[in-house]
Amino acid sequence: MREIHVIGIGAGDPEQLTLQAVKALRSTDVFFLLDKGEVKADLVGLRREILDAHLPEGSYRLVEVRDPERDRSAGGAGYSPAVGDWRSARADIYERLLREELGERERGAFLVWGDPALYDSTLGILEEVRERGNVAFGYDVVPGISSVSALVARHRTGLNRVARPVQITTGRRLAEGFPEGVDDVVVMLDAHQAFLRHAQDDIDIYWGAYIGTPDEILVSGPLAEKADEIVRLRAEARERKGWIMDTYLLRRRPGA
Amino acid sequence: MREIHVIGIGAGDPEQLTLQAVKALRSTDVFFLLDKGEVKADLVGLRREILDAHLPEGSYRLVEVRDPERDRSAGGAGYSPAVGDWRSARADIYERLLREELGERERGAFLVWGDPALYDSTLGILEEVRERGNVAFGYDVVPGISSVSALVARHRTGLNRVARPVQITTGRRLAEGFPEGVDDVVVMLDAHQAFLRHAQDDIDIYWGAYIGTPDEILVSGPLAEKADEIVRLRAEARERKGWIMDTYLLRRRPGA
Repeated sequence: MREIHVIGIGAGDPEQLTLQAVKALRSTDVFFLLDKGEVKADLVGLRREILDAHLPEGSYRLVEVRDPERDRSAGGAGYSPAVGDWRSARADIYERLLREELGERERGAFLVWGDPALYDSTLGILEEVRERGNVAFGYDVVPGISSVSALVARHRTGLNRVARPVQITTGRRLAEGFPEGVDDVVVMLDAHQAFLRHAQDDIDIYWGAYIGTPDEILVSGPLAEKADEIVRLRAEARERKGWIMDTYLLRRRPGA
Repeated sequence: MREIHVIGIGAGDPEQLTLQAVKALRSTDVFFLLDKGEVKADLVGLRREILDAHLPEGSYRLVEVRDPERDRSAGGAGYSPAVGDWRSARADIYERLLREELGERERGAFLVWGDPALYDSTLGILEEVRERGNVAFGYDVVPGISSVSALVARHRTGLNRVARPVQITTGRRLAEGFPEGVDDVVVMLDAHQAFLRHAQDDIDIYWGAYIGTPDEILVSGPLAEKADEIVRLRAEARERKGWIMDTYLLRRRPGA
């Protein structure tokens, strides 16, 4: 039966690969790279570097596919249906890849930035392909260092405070308000700098972009003081590189 | 100046070490192992296996110290002060280790299960030692695969659902009620099986113990159906091994 590895490759530093991930790479016949367009070419390049570093040339096949565009213009209440359409289009592609590009006794792999468990669609899409029942395959998941772990490691702080909870959420959710019942909130996928809505509060921010890469930028301190600096650095970096991947932890001070 | 690595070594599977962690191990002169008493001897043994696997014999020193017991009897409102006393006692030990067991130009390391960012005290204690100002040192953090990541990878599911938040919390907090504003909750440090309080609800559980080790146990399904089985497996495993490390994800079904 066809086997698939879903391999978390860490947040950007090639040394954040685990030994388990290296082993999984070495047992793979075909790698599927989904290219999200020119602005993400850097990311495809980084994946190739990882393959080059750990595998002999000619020991594997590489299949590159153009990722379907997600309709981000829908916004608001339209968010979930747009995501649904996009997932379905992606499932079509995955199904075709598994059927046409992978032999029945071969192993394929999807390389996922960070950890496949956090805000990544690969597992959901594979499950959808499996439920359709048109191609039989097994799969396993190799956990990776998430951008969340990498962020706080670089800031040398924890995710939670002693005996307290931490929430991981999206910029979209943070824009609706600071989550209830928690004082430590990690925000991912924030294209609109939702932290600006909380810049007047008694909150510290630990922000990072391109974490673990030579382009890494880190800023931490009281959000009210640092918000403008982060907005400026973000805009400059985005302009310079054409894309940005950033994450941050908001930490509300006791009694705030 | 003295340098310290705080190295996340993964949740139990020695192959979950990252390449960065292996490099950090190899640049370390002295490893500090804190032994939590006989019941945790297995864990010290696992750490030694990791050192043996990656370092030539005689290339490092190993300093084993008995960890101060935390007064867990305090409970309730007394929890934080008891933790404070324990941290202070631990800071005394760390300070002595850095001063007496590490040369001024040497590198020491603390090996942390999972990820040093999640419910681990090492970073907070090092910061306390630094603030006391009796010994000068620098430190860095090597992120590790957390038991949270390892858990969901083994269950082949994500931590969050599409565009939704996830909260990581403790058994003590879950016992106070299901967190507000989230339907996906990861619970750590639950000695009292707080999930039993929610067994009547429309919730799925993804539970795991000793994840990534030969003793691994995984159970998933509707909580109402699986709760008793988990209680039984937990009790048996704890009896057999003398200790247990388990974690679980609770996932409330849409509309519940």
